[in-house]
Amino acid sequence: MAKSKDNKKSSSDNRVSKAVVSRLSLYLRELSRLERAGIETTSSTKLGEMLGFSDAQVRKDLANFGQFGYPGVGYRCSELIATIRQIMGTDQRWPVALVGVGNLGRALLGYRGFSHQGFNTVAAFDLDQRIVGTEIESIPVYNLDDLDKIVQEKSIQLAILAVPATAAQEVAEKLVAAGICGILNFAAVTLKLPDHITVIGVDLAIEMEQLSFAMTSRMSS
Amino acid sequence: MAKSKDNKKSSSDNRVSKAVVSRLSLYLRELSRLERAGIETTSSTKLGEMLGFSDAQVRKDLANFGQFGYPGVGYRCSELIATIRQIMGTDQRWPVALVGVGNLGRALLGYRGFSHQGFNTVAAFDLDQRIVGTEIESIPVYNLDDLDKIVQEKSIQLAILAVPATAAQEVAEKLVAAGICGILNFAAVTLKLPDHITVIGVDLAIEMEQLSFAMTSRMSS
Repeated sequence: MAKSKDNKKSSSDNRVSKAVVSRLSLYLRELSRLERAGIETTSSTKLGEMLGFSDAQVRKDLANFGQFGYPGVGYRCSELIATIRQIMGTDQRWPVALVGVGNLGRALLGYRGFSHQGFNTVAAFDLDQRIVGTEIESIPVYNLDDLDKIVQEKSIQLAILAVPATAAQEVAEKLVAAGICGILNFAAVTLKLPDHITVIGVDLAIEMEQLSFAMTSRMSS
Repeated sequence: MAKSKDNKKSSSDNRVSKAVVSRLSLYLRELSRLERAGIETTSSTKLGEMLGFSDAQVRKDLANFGQFGYPGVGYRCSELIATIRQIMGTDQRWPVALVGVGNLGRALLGYRGFSHQGFNTVAAFDLDQRIVGTEIESIPVYNLDDLDKIVQEKSIQLAILAVPATAAQEVAEKLVAAGICGILNFAAVTLKLPDHITVIGVDLAIEMEQLSFAMTSRMSS
């Protein structure tokens, strides 16, 4: 995905790879599911089975962050959930700004998955005067010109960039100038930003290309 | 991302890793940009610089698929574009079905990035009788009950799953039964499907967690 490039930045900041962090996210989801089902403990084997990883992989991933689990017991779900949230930084809530309230932006404003994981979209920004001043999914839509003011007021550090590709670089620079340090970029362009800014690029066509590649190479093999 | 798990399937079908395929997608985008700018040739160094990879990485990725480039010339953009499209399977157009026309589904129906890369969303499916029979972004919305019929009529192999998490597994099984072999899954659940089905999971909260992790680990380091 567009991530590949963007994450060179973040991975240079971190000791563990993006792949490990991605798997932690998956462990977190499975553990939460177990907890909701009233299951108190699990093992690297069970966790691996649920996700299609080996138990060694699960243990290796967690070993990056310390010692977990108890002999004969395995992992206590609630404990491991708390630890992983702490590692991921989702033990706190993050106020998030969304920029670009088009089709995709509206969908993202309605996307429940973010707040479930601690990401609160507290402000949306657009230039369209027909929606500026309104609320969408009970999130206020501000004029892009008010970015600096609102980002400071609401001490926002993360932003979701859902503007057209042609505007992405310019708007991203505005975000950085306003004090945003992390951007989830939906525009199919590679943003050129200072190294201290973390950019995760989401180019959905690239995800589709993973599908066509898998199917093409299967047909030809 | 949810991809990590899902791609164990596709990567077991393919000789090269998901990361390589992702980078091919990025090379393709940069090469297309160069071509549009009227630049006929480039090099692994320039291509790497544009994306933040080393020239060795670029050469290594391409070497998976054969010998490219000319001494003293580098890569011919148009040639390399054609080759990568062939490798990715995007030298052909793929008819795609989208299931679940909620906020996200509507946004995806309006998402231009897909058709630019050869993915034509030719049919949308939902259960909401208020939209069944209508067109959204000039794509016909069918009743989910007509899935088998339409998938065959339009010989659709790929589907985008944009239904609520609670419905995802059931609808995914319907897709497989209808003959779909590749699914782009937006529901935050790990789908359990036969091994010959390729699933790419897109859980946007997981992308956000990459951000919070990068920022948290930076603050703590």
